[in-house]
Amino acid sequence: MQHAKPLPSYLVQRYHGWKATTYKDNQAWYHRLADEGQRPRAMVISCCDSRVHVTSIFGADQGEFFIHRNIANLVPPYKPDGLQHGTSAAVEYAVTALKVAHILVLGHSNCGGVQGCLDMCSGHAPELEETSSFVGRWMDILRPGYDRVKELPSESQRDALEKQAVIVSLENLMTFPFVAEEVEKGRLSLHGLWNDIGEGGVEHFLPETGGFQPI
Amino acid sequence: MQHAKPLPSYLVQRYHGWKATTYKDNQAWYHRLADEGQRPRAMVISCCDSRVHVTSIFGADQGEFFIHRNIANLVPPYKPDGLQHGTSAAVEYAVTALKVAHILVLGHSNCGGVQGCLDMCSGHAPELEETSSFVGRWMDILRPGYDRVKELPSESQRDALEKQAVIVSLENLMTFPFVAEEVEKGRLSLHGLWNDIGEGGVEHFLPETGGFQPI
Amino acid sequence: MQHAKPLPSYLVQRYHGWKATTYKDNQAWYHRLADEGQRPRAMVISCCDSRVHVTSIFGADQGEFFIHRNIANLVPPYKPDGLQHGTSAAVEYAVTALKVAHILVLGHSNCGGVQGCLDMCSGHAPELEETSSFVGRWMDILRPGYDRVKELPSESQRDALEKQAVIVSLENLMTFPFVAEEVEKGRLSLHGLWNDIGEGGVEHFLPETGGFQPI
Amino acid sequence: MQHAKPLPSYLVQRYHGWKATTYKDNQAWYHRLADEGQRPRAMVISCCDSRVHVTSIFGADQGEFFIHRNIANLVPPYKPDGLQHGTSAAVEYAVTALKVAHILVLGHSNCGGVQGCLDMCSGHAPELEETSSFVGRWMDILRPGYDRVKELPSESQRDALEKQAVIVSLENLMTFPFVAEEVEKGRLSLHGLWNDIGEGGVEHFLPETGGFQPI
Repeated sequence: MQHAKPLPSYLVQRYHGWKATTYKDNQAWYHRLADEGQRPRAMVISCCDSRVHVTSIFGADQGEFFIHRNIANLVPPYKPDGLQHGTSAAVEYAVTALKVAHILVLGHSNCGGVQGCLDMCSGHAPELEETSSFVGRWMDILRPGYDRVKELPSESQRDALEKQAVIVSLENLMTFPFVAEEVEKGRLSLHGLWNDIGEGGVEHFLPETGGFQPI
Repeated sequence: MQHAKPLPSYLVQRYHGWKATTYKDNQAWYHRLADEGQRPRAMVISCCDSRVHVTSIFGADQGEFFIHRNIANLVPPYKPDGLQHGTSAAVEYAVTALKVAHILVLGHSNCGGVQGCLDMCSGHAPELEETSSFVGRWMDILRPGYDRVKELPSESQRDALEKQAVIVSLENLMTFPFVAEEVEKGRLSLHGLWNDIGEGGVEHFLPETGGFQPI
Repeated sequence: MQHAKPLPSYLVQRYHGWKATTYKDNQAWYHRLADEGQRPRAMVISCCDSRVHVTSIFGADQGEFFIHRNIANLVPPYKPDGLQHGTSAAVEYAVTALKVAHILVLGHSNCGGVQGCLDMCSGHAPELEETSSFVGRWMDILRPGYDRVKELPSESQRDALEKQAVIVSLENLMTFPFVAEEVEKGRLSLHGLWNDIGEGGVEHFLPETGGFQPI
Repeated sequence: MQHAKPLPSYLVQRYHGWKATTYKDNQAWYHRLADEGQRPRAMVISCCDSRVHVTSIFGADQGEFFIHRNIANLVPPYKPDGLQHGTSAAVEYAVTALKVAHILVLGHSNCGGVQGCLDMCSGHAPELEETSSFVGRWMDILRPGYDRVKELPSESQRDALEKQAVIVSLENLMTFPFVAEEVEKGRLSLHGLWNDIGEGGVEHFLPETGGFQPI
């Protein structure tokens, strides 16, 4: 790997600042986390988007959340075909090895991935239909969600599809036998959330109404 | 989705604390981020491990880092076969749509995924060899790294394999044509890092020596 | 311009050091910044004083802060009279073209400009009262601040007037229609700061109390 | 000033990191700087542009450079009319009070202010011609430079005008009696520089040729 570069100096400087303050003040906790392993209470599945700061919004500290982040916070359906499924591996590890008590699926407003899905499904982004488009193929997971929002007025489709990304992922989570079993035994609970970036709002999915409501 | 539950109250409470403080003091920035879109400087690929807090270590705020997190911070080789590749989709979006200037691959000590890979490759975890094991199939990506560390004394194999997870991922990144092209044009740089959880240390990969060195 | 000289060699030497290290490690970012333009999150208005290092104190890298520096970090009142107003031009560009989310006004201890204002207003520096004194006329902006501190014991007047330089500038910023509008829409926030050079302290202005408090 | 907000928490965190490292390691120097006042060797006049990091490029530490930053690094001609001239005040203070030995005027590539001047002077930005445009009136300083580049091919006009911003400013500096006097006595030297943001290059103005040359 002759192409790697040293870390940019502004990050080196910030790291040393963290080491001298946050790390120093919590050294004992970091040692315990290293020696005894992690024991997170929750898994969070969120988008890679730089505007979503799940640890900040929920005041989480090191050791609290096992966090998987991918484009548009999607979970694919259970498919044990021997191929590589990074999201399914993360869910499997969280539920069977770490035995987390909660899985939070956190969607958000202004999602570029969801917008891409909308463009693709409505025929406006043929490049995303190509076999070689990783983003397009990934967003295929959300096609069942598109079918549920396509009749809505166009100005409300993206928000609705962002929320479908949460609902479809929750549905797909229940297709994993080890998830369904823990949920049914009452040892694991699933939560759907949607974050409005600009307004700082968070809504959660309520299965009784099938809708989202501010927390 | 009749199985979703409302958000646990301790998280609701923390959220309201964040809204009244961090959000309130940064409202203008969140509005800008929502209206004008994200333009992160770097993509970070890190592990889902709850003990790795990349935004904290590098003092990053909302909008700075596009973050993908998966088990053992792995990037698979380029394989445009029309199947779902969440990590490849995230890399594609970061490089081609967001045009990030840096990709940081951040490994860490005490990594459960890497330990699993070590156990599997050395014949001590037959369950991970099964077709149905998502974690096992995902850790297959790191097999080329195992071949490079298997002759080491057993007590130093895990650290070495954690660092191979970084190196193998950097190597695989360069198999993506759009990554290699941007790197060669000097418009994207790759960085390999390894975080010692307990000691709070960070080392970066130096291609000249092939080794890692404290920053 | 027959008077210009080549750059002193100690600076040439340092530049080559920067080029071989910081530039080389961040080349991709510099290319992006050049090609895609700046999008700084904040504008900083600070003093020219050589002891104030705003990028160092706040760990900022290239591209983060749009920085205007003048004597005593002053913003004059809005006055669109067709004459040259360098500070007003900088504020206009930051808010209307770059759409920054924050303006930080950063004052500091031991400020020579503020001391000059104090001497002038208390009758001890007649040369600063002259029409031809650029420093004197510039410090006129701070006269409303002097009126608020002149009854204080003399030993505490300079600190108080340095903080007034921040407050008066924040007040004057709100006289610019485009600043007031963005602030009221929640798309721009103003922050007042004062840096103690010797002790390395930073205090911020809290409007609830009208005073400054360590951050 | 009821509109000021507390400092965003990411900057508070970074500040504490700086305090615990850079400040702590240099505490004695900061105390001396506070107690004995600044004695900078050079004044730098640069653009507010967030991509220009003069302290980084020239490895400058606290106390070395007295820095004035405005749109397009311009110095207006000497005009002691009793009105407010922030740039002239900074030059006066640097030369007569601080007795700096060098003034560096640092221009740069991709300058938005210079682009605005070009648009305005070539008739493509009528809004910048308005009395109420602070940016337009400020860029009037560069009109004499436009006259020297307007016959060039359009693709090379911006670079040429950026360099004229340096030359015009050097010329205007010499109209200040206290600058001319110090230059003629050999106690002050002026330097013209231009920074290529993307390539990391720096060129200096050579009066013998009237052109710029890489340092």
